Amino acid sequence: MESFLHYLTAKGTFTDTELERIAAVTVVKKLKKRQYLLRQGEVCRFKAFVVSGSLRLYRTSDDAVEHVMRFATENWWLNDLESFRSGRPAKGAIDALEDSTLLLWSKENWELLKREIPAFNALQASLISRSLDAQGDRLYSTISYSAEERYHEFLKSFPDFYHRVPLHMIASYLGVSRETLSRIRKHATVQ
Amino acid sequence: MESFLHYLTAKGTFTDTELERIAAVTVVKKLKKRQYLLRQGEVCRFKAFVVSGSLRLYRTSDDAVEHVMRFATENWWLNDLESFRSGRPAKGAIDALEDSTLLLWSKENWELLKREIPAFNALQASLISRSLDAQGDRLYSTISYSAEERYHEFLKSFPDFYHRVPLHMIASYLGVSRETLSRIRKHATVQ
Repeated sequence: MESFLHYLTAKGTFTDTELERIAAVTVVKKLKKRQYLLRQGEVCRFKAFVVSGSLRLYRTSDDAVEHVMRFATENWWLNDLESFRSGRPAKGAIDALEDSTLLLWSKENWELLKREIPAFNALQASLISRSLDAQGDRLYSTISYSAEERYHEFLKSFPDFYHRVPLHMIASYLGVSRETLSRIRKHATVQ
Repeated sequence: MESFLHYLTAKGTFTDTELERIAAVTVVKKLKKRQYLLRQGEVCRFKAFVVSGSLRLYRTSDDAVEHVMRFATENWWLNDLESFRSGRPAKGAIDALEDSTLLLWSKENWELLKREIPAFNALQASLISRSLDAQGDRLYSTISYSAEERYHEFLKSFPDFYHRVPLHMIASYLGVSRETLSRIRKHATVQ
């Protein structure tokens, strides 16, 4: 909780009462590696903040292939936004890539905090906008960069992270085959 | 303006006074085919709503290739969101694919409307969230679907639109070569 309160005060101006109000409705959850936070088809009823560990949000296509939409590690937010907002079944599933500690808020408490605490509401709006920007950049790199360029961009965005995540998941995130990614990595190491 | 007021009242509950307030700060702009609404590197200081015609938002990569990030046609919103919000130079450019009529709002008026009119603010928040969902879906289809599946999805999302837009721009939007798209279209026609 401590680290999350540090995160909040770095991102906005909160009174002590507001921080206590937020802390009072925060639930700590621990996940073992491979454990699910959300299954595809369930309704996503929470917002999550990663304190430690790492997770992925992925979708499974009709041919049973898993496609990683997002990774999340320390100080990242994660949920299935569309399902959270609409109450419809989630298109994606979320599971833990490492043993992880998360903070969770129910939808009711989340809406309450947004209504009661202006800085919390502003932070949330800014996170949504930044997600949109980041996703736009990722879309751009997916349609315009070579597999090699995308790999190097990934290393910049997630330094150290590629040691923590299986290669096939990074390949899936980048939209390339595992063989292509292995070749790129070998080439990059030789240089 | 009429059609935009219809659009608004279909999307939210506005009083007559509010609709007049919105109309009072709306600027009509006409663009000829190929004319720019925004150039890459400029700061985007407007929100735009397409009344008629069509436009694209695209980025140009270092090798001078244009990559279509978005199309917009009747009743779609368009701007460079990141630049609009941050005041930083736009990564994308916007030009007209057909003669087009747009409605524009300056950033100042836009913020004013959001502050003064709750339904306008709610509509805006819902548009941002829906953009994020749509972009998530597009990202998913880009990393997981075949070129052929992406083409058919495009036809569903933009029925009739492929008659109005040059083939190479659709190919760019789909992240495939023009040759690949020609082959897919020929194959689809034969079936």
